[in-house]
Amino acid sequence: MIETVRFREGKVHLLDQTRLPGEEVVLALDTVDLVHEAIRSLRVRGAPAIGIAAAYGVVLAAHLGRDDADGGRGRAREAVDHLRTSRPTAVNLFWATDRMRDALDALPAGGPVADALGAEADRILEEDLEMSRQMGAHGLGLLGERPRILTHCNTGGLATGGLGTALGVAYAARDAGRGVEVLADETRPLLQGARLTAWECRKAGIPVRVLTDGASAWALRQGMVDAVFIGADRIARNGDTANKIGSYAVALAAREAGVPFYVVAPGTTLDPDTPTGAEIPIEERGADEVRTFAGSPSTPPGVEVYNPAFDVTPAALITAIITEKGVFRPPYADLAAAAAPRGERSG
Amino acid sequence: MIETVRFREGKVHLLDQTRLPGEEVVLALDTVDLVHEAIRSLRVRGAPAIGIAAAYGVVLAAHLGRDDADGGRGRAREAVDHLRTSRPTAVNLFWATDRMRDALDALPAGGPVADALGAEADRILEEDLEMSRQMGAHGLGLLGERPRILTHCNTGGLATGGLGTALGVAYAARDAGRGVEVLADETRPLLQGARLTAWECRKAGIPVRVLTDGASAWALRQGMVDAVFIGADRIARNGDTANKIGSYAVALAAREAGVPFYVVAPGTTLDPDTPTGAEIPIEERGADEVRTFAGSPSTPPGVEVYNPAFDVTPAALITAIITEKGVFRPPYADLAAAAAPRGERSG
Repeated sequence: MIETVRFREGKVHLLDQTRLPGEEVVLALDTVDLVHEAIRSLRVRGAPAIGIAAAYGVVLAAHLGRDDADGGRGRAREAVDHLRTSRPTAVNLFWATDRMRDALDALPAGGPVADALGAEADRILEEDLEMSRQMGAHGLGLLGERPRILTHCNTGGLATGGLGTALGVAYAARDAGRGVEVLADETRPLLQGARLTAWECRKAGIPVRVLTDGASAWALRQGMVDAVFIGADRIARNGDTANKIGSYAVALAAREAGVPFYVVAPGTTLDPDTPTGAEIPIEERGADEVRTFAGSPSTPPGVEVYNPAFDVTPAALITAIITEKGVFRPPYADLAAAAAPRGERSG
Repeated sequence: MIETVRFREGKVHLLDQTRLPGEEVVLALDTVDLVHEAIRSLRVRGAPAIGIAAAYGVVLAAHLGRDDADGGRGRAREAVDHLRTSRPTAVNLFWATDRMRDALDALPAGGPVADALGAEADRILEEDLEMSRQMGAHGLGLLGERPRILTHCNTGGLATGGLGTALGVAYAARDAGRGVEVLADETRPLLQGARLTAWECRKAGIPVRVLTDGASAWALRQGMVDAVFIGADRIARNGDTANKIGSYAVALAAREAGVPFYVVAPGTTLDPDTPTGAEIPIEERGADEVRTFAGSPSTPPGVEVYNPAFDVTPAALITAIITEKGVFRPPYADLAAAAAPRGERSG
């Protein structure tokens, strides 16, 4: 298991994913602004991991305000509002901060709130790990022997509390002795596939090959893939799925090749309040992500860029959506029931 | 016009495309081995430009052997055989070296052959420029006002004798005052779009935006593109088209979006000897192209890689193929007639 985000000694400890695979650096963040920056700058990324980091950011605020007259309530509330502005697409961010606010509202008056909020964030983490185990088990049921899996971006331990969504299925296959192999799209612009998925697979002893994003359609056409598994940043009520830019292109190629295309995500990534993909806000990120890599320029200086961080794969291209509750199939009428409990949302 | 490859003062002068856009370095190559290396290492790339470079490589051999007893015939013949091994997919390489060998065979015995071969290579270059002008004119007929063109890899002056195939259509639109805009896929692994197409468009005063390869399907779905224009490395008799890896994914997305997908290539890229795309050899290149980005490592060291340099877009996904002879439509029964004259091939 990867310790993606943890709360220790009054600080948010976070493996800085922008430094991988070159260096394994654990940051000890001691202000909410630093947690906000870590999410915005993708030091922590992946929808479930973003939610967990934000939850611990609220705990950090309460910890810093433990000697305040209100026991840290005001700071925790401010942290909820502030952290929600760090990224727009991953619904887990809003779900987790909603849940922390609900927990705060439910506390009796008086005394510091850090310990109670810490216990709530720990539960979010524990539940995430348990959901990963269940998604892996459900995904395993879709695989044969020696499955060759294509994946996009990173959806493993680094994207979650420590196990994974789509890549978690590969881990489940490995644990079951299925002889799984992974083809990892490099995933420009930030190369989460090349940097993070390759790193995780090697750590886990799973054979992995990296390919450019443009090559994955061809790999599918060449019969090199048995199933595609991707994660999600937000899944609309109808099954339309926002995920890392490039996912939609893979879905088109999978359909053309007759290869199943699976989305794996916990109930916290389902958003029944969003009817279709058309209503999902798509983050556009800075031009320098495309103009450079690791500080090296790849374009003429100052060239204009189009850099959406996500795309939306229409439900019609998705063979099934796997959550901790099971395997959901088109037309996804029962999908909303798999969402994290509605009562925990503040709307 | 860009002086991609020229023969001057007994040397092959070649703009080193691996150094762009950072530096404009013109190499003066004085051995056939250096020309071979320049093609293999993509210092010159693009199917028409590869053909021209190989033709001048043969001229260089004849020039170096001008005082030999056979007037340089033996060296020229060796150069033909050697240069053909530099890359496997672009058929222009074989066409151009065939033509140089045919020209050599047609020369009377006695005396040095360098001047006559130089004249033949100059004709290949001149014809390439004229074909570019004609392709641009034919392509222009497919465009409306203010066309927004998506392209992949580089198909401009750098890929040809100096004008272009697919990007040449954008130049024709600019010359006709159509207000053209270009979206340029960055084209991993070697970033010919980000490095070369962006550089050319800026030099030509054409508005250009760079996007990752994974983003182009989404740009098409979002209605940001009026037409896709790509080049080709080899076109089979049935219209199946080998082009830079990633082209096939763009073709799928264009069909899904209802956007026309055009291939632009001279008759020298048509290969009627190859019945379908299944018979086109696809070059696999070294792993380090994918393991690094703009010179910086992007994966864990030594990770396995799948790195095909090309893919094949089936004819069924191609709206039309534009050559210097006109616009060809499915089922491409008349395409073979547009190929460079059969008599000039040695088979």
